[in-house]
Amino acid sequence: MTKTATAQLRAPYLLFLGDIQDATFGKTGFGLLQWRPELVAGQLRLPGCGLDLEVPELTIKEAASKGIASLVISIAPIGGRLPESWYSTIGEALDCGMDIVSGLHSKLTDIPEFVARASASGARLVNVRTPPANIPVGSGLERSGRRVLMVGTECAVGKKYSALALSQAMADLGMNATFRATGQTGIMIAGEGIAVDAVVADFISGAAELISPANQADHWDVIEGQGSLYNPGYAGVTLGLIHGSQPDALVMCHEATMTKIIGCGDYSIPPLEECMQTYLHMAKLTSPDVRFAGLSINTSKLPQAERQSYLDSLSDRMNLPCVDPVASGSAPIAQYVRDNFDA
Amino acid sequence: MTKTATAQLRAPYLLFLGDIQDATFGKTGFGLLQWRPELVAGQLRLPGCGLDLEVPELTIKEAASKGIASLVISIAPIGGRLPESWYSTIGEALDCGMDIVSGLHSKLTDIPEFVARASASGARLVNVRTPPANIPVGSGLERSGRRVLMVGTECAVGKKYSALALSQAMADLGMNATFRATGQTGIMIAGEGIAVDAVVADFISGAAELISPANQADHWDVIEGQGSLYNPGYAGVTLGLIHGSQPDALVMCHEATMTKIIGCGDYSIPPLEECMQTYLHMAKLTSPDVRFAGLSINTSKLPQAERQSYLDSLSDRMNLPCVDPVASGSAPIAQYVRDNFDA
Repeated sequence: MTKTATAQLRAPYLLFLGDIQDATFGKTGFGLLQWRPELVAGQLRLPGCGLDLEVPELTIKEAASKGIASLVISIAPIGGRLPESWYSTIGEALDCGMDIVSGLHSKLTDIPEFVARASASGARLVNVRTPPANIPVGSGLERSGRRVLMVGTECAVGKKYSALALSQAMADLGMNATFRATGQTGIMIAGEGIAVDAVVADFISGAAELISPANQADHWDVIEGQGSLYNPGYAGVTLGLIHGSQPDALVMCHEATMTKIIGCGDYSIPPLEECMQTYLHMAKLTSPDVRFAGLSINTSKLPQAERQSYLDSLSDRMNLPCVDPVASGSAPIAQYVRDNFDA
Repeated sequence: MTKTATAQLRAPYLLFLGDIQDATFGKTGFGLLQWRPELVAGQLRLPGCGLDLEVPELTIKEAASKGIASLVISIAPIGGRLPESWYSTIGEALDCGMDIVSGLHSKLTDIPEFVARASASGARLVNVRTPPANIPVGSGLERSGRRVLMVGTECAVGKKYSALALSQAMADLGMNATFRATGQTGIMIAGEGIAVDAVVADFISGAAELISPANQADHWDVIEGQGSLYNPGYAGVTLGLIHGSQPDALVMCHEATMTKIIGCGDYSIPPLEECMQTYLHMAKLTSPDVRFAGLSINTSKLPQAERQSYLDSLSDRMNLPCVDPVASGSAPIAQYVRDNFDA
């Protein structure tokens, strides 16, 4: 059905954790384990590594003998650069024909030794931030299938997690739903996708059209959002993603205590109603009947005792399901989509 | 004052017209002659060229002896590729130390012979579509100076011409105004700028901040627009340019008879009032007091007898100056800016 030009990752994965100390840099590994445990065959840690994902410990040779297809660099080293202490492990994996999957800013293909060893064994150096070649300009043409897109009051409010939780909840209801990735960690989890913020500006909405291509009439793409129309650095990415996604439904994502755009002290986040109106207004260009299907809120910074009443009161105010997907999943939004969007 | 990282072209120019037959492919040459005649030292045409800009005919050797600094490829060959019949002229110019300035999709730097000859003489291969390295993410920080941005109902409605005409009209009033280029032809005219649609998506608004940097309090940047919020292929570029430009004033650009987005038959252009409201709503994020300063309309497809009454009636309806900049310049908008925006 799909004919995207997005990178396709090969499973199963061996998660490479290097020698990092701090679990906060292991987000990708945790995400893969939570959402795609069936793809994770084990972990490989260098001496001094302080992180343990509690999956089988495998050497490269053991992994290769088990048919593991990719070594996934599952951590973000400080500064995004590849430490030289990791080179020998990566080289050994390449010699065994394993793809190396990375989202680092420093490119594996810039290291001639890796290119040569990959070429010799037929392994691939896959950077999930590198867009495919020849992305077209967005066509704006209507396409089959249904799509729900996460949008945010700001970056880093949980759009990826919201999309993953919603696609899971829709599948639990027996709906035909696919998570669609638009950022590097999402791509590792989905095994495919395009980092839309890495695409040349002319092609943002074209990339979004590739990410969620025409599909069966009852199929739902659940699309990870990027940026925010309220973030002056990234709103262009967000708008191109909206137009290319042609969403039937939007889910408003927000962190309950956030009132300002991060790193831009003078930019306030407007009331949620205003944000939602703006998103609808801009999304209507390519999807005239677009509506909201719910709000997905990170309530973790609220006092425990206030979280549920915050969601209940917001739900009354919006007349839409409001969930904290980390706390209790996204079943109410999935149910709302089934009841209100499916024909 | 400015500290942009944008490419800086070196004048005077020799305009290279190759062997094209058709004046419609000579837009860049005509634009340079109209807006920057003082930079144009001559033209160089190959046998069979059907275009004549009526400037001195110079060989490469003559141009070099006159101190001409750049050979500007002033035409768009069909398909954007460089014909091999042009190689010897370009090579000769490089040997003489002349920069080659191009906006072609095929890159001069992909041709090893040119790279070698440029390196030997110290000449540069400048592609005005190639963004500078290390463009930052947009900061959203307020900066000094005033800015007026062209916005369009659609691509190709005359935003570049409108900006050039307005900057000229402002200068004629004694105002301190600079045309700022955001696309390839504009960059050749301005001698600097960034093609914002060629920038990686994350950096659109950062590029716009570089294009119109902080300036004297009474200085106006007159910024060429790109795309349209109503074009589903390019709206992301447009929004990033709006946010990064932080415009004090907008000018609505439109082609009087256009009712549909080009190449996307199902997308109608809404009434101008609605377009203007949407532009203001989105621009207010980084420029809360933004207002329109006028409308700049291409009336050439209206019957001659109806053009002025169209503009007059639109001006009454909008309570703003409405001009056709090609027909009679942009003095009324410049005057409006001086009367209504300057402190």
